[in-house]
Amino acid sequence: MNFLEEKIRTDGIVLNEKVLKVDTFLDHQIDVSILNKIADYFKEKWSDLNFDKVLTIEASGIAIATVVAQKFNVPLVFAKKSKTLNISDDVYTADVMSFTHQKMNKVIVSKEVLNKDENILIIDDFLAHGEALTGLISICKQAGANVSAIGIAIEKAFQKGGEKLREQGYKIESIARINKMDATSREIEFIQ
Amino acid sequence: MNFLEEKIRTDGIVLNEKVLKVDTFLDHQIDVSILNKIADYFKEKWSDLNFDKVLTIEASGIAIATVVAQKFNVPLVFAKKSKTLNISDDVYTADVMSFTHQKMNKVIVSKEVLNKDENILIIDDFLAHGEALTGLISICKQAGANVSAIGIAIEKAFQKGGEKLREQGYKIESIARINKMDATSREIEFIQ
Repeated sequence: MNFLEEKIRTDGIVLNEKVLKVDTFLDHQIDVSILNKIADYFKEKWSDLNFDKVLTIEASGIAIATVVAQKFNVPLVFAKKSKTLNISDDVYTADVMSFTHQKMNKVIVSKEVLNKDENILIIDDFLAHGEALTGLISICKQAGANVSAIGIAIEKAFQKGGEKLREQGYKIESIARINKMDATSREIEFIQ
Repeated sequence: MNFLEEKIRTDGIVLNEKVLKVDTFLDHQIDVSILNKIADYFKEKWSDLNFDKVLTIEASGIAIATVVAQKFNVPLVFAKKSKTLNISDDVYTADVMSFTHQKMNKVIVSKEVLNKDENILIIDDFLAHGEALTGLISICKQAGANVSAIGIAIEKAFQKGGEKLREQGYKIESIARINKMDATSREIEFIQ
């Protein structure tokens, strides 16, 4: 088991067979030593790649993406969830379904911060159905930017978003890939 | 001028006498070298203080708070804007007025991540009317935690939130304090 799988085993809480709570170290309270290890992991994995920017989506992806951008020494861009439908012309937009909140969010990135031919590293905390990633990929396409790689902390592999996007040819690295969570025993099975 | 004042002069955009746009380096696209300097600034300022945690509020405070927490080597907690009014008993809550969106947000922090007698460093990107800070201070009080210091990147001093909170005895350090912004000339006057 790697550092993140161990942390999930110790401090993660299986709420049910689909929901894993990591509120005490990753997406509400955040353990900076885990963040640093996540950044080191991706830096080692992609030491041969050059990224122009890191892209994530608010809010829980920001902390991870910040340390990854710091490690690669490139700017970070986070897509915003728009509060209104009055979207001006100078933004790229994508509709992202949130299963947690059971609603559609419009996410936006200003055209001035994402450019043609830039090599983008997309970072997020969770990959489940792949809705958020699909939205971020769409925004990169609108800008004419390249999705060079995608780095995920925790992939719920049983929800198939990762499988679907890998089939489309995207280079996705997830540090902890969960195959199955048992609602009764609270056990977590990782894909090695 | 310090590094942040210089960056604001170069890349900030005065939209009108009240609104400063820092989308290209601080709250949409984020310049990691500026983040690192912000963290160094607060670390040097409070090298004699011991904090147990850094506290901020989603979304645009998270990147700054992450590098500050990393620098002080303590956990980061970010208050969440609740999506529903179905707040369970295991959270602290505060109402925060957003002038940008002209609405009241309920912000929440889980009781399990904020404890009695902890020394808290509150970090945010902007201080204007002080609404967000007042909410975070209220949450600390509910937890019985101490607000040891407050670190702000940009204070719009003319909006008086900082003045009001300093009068209440809070130790607030703002890296760039704006006295006045001119809507016509687009000039920014800092308090030295």
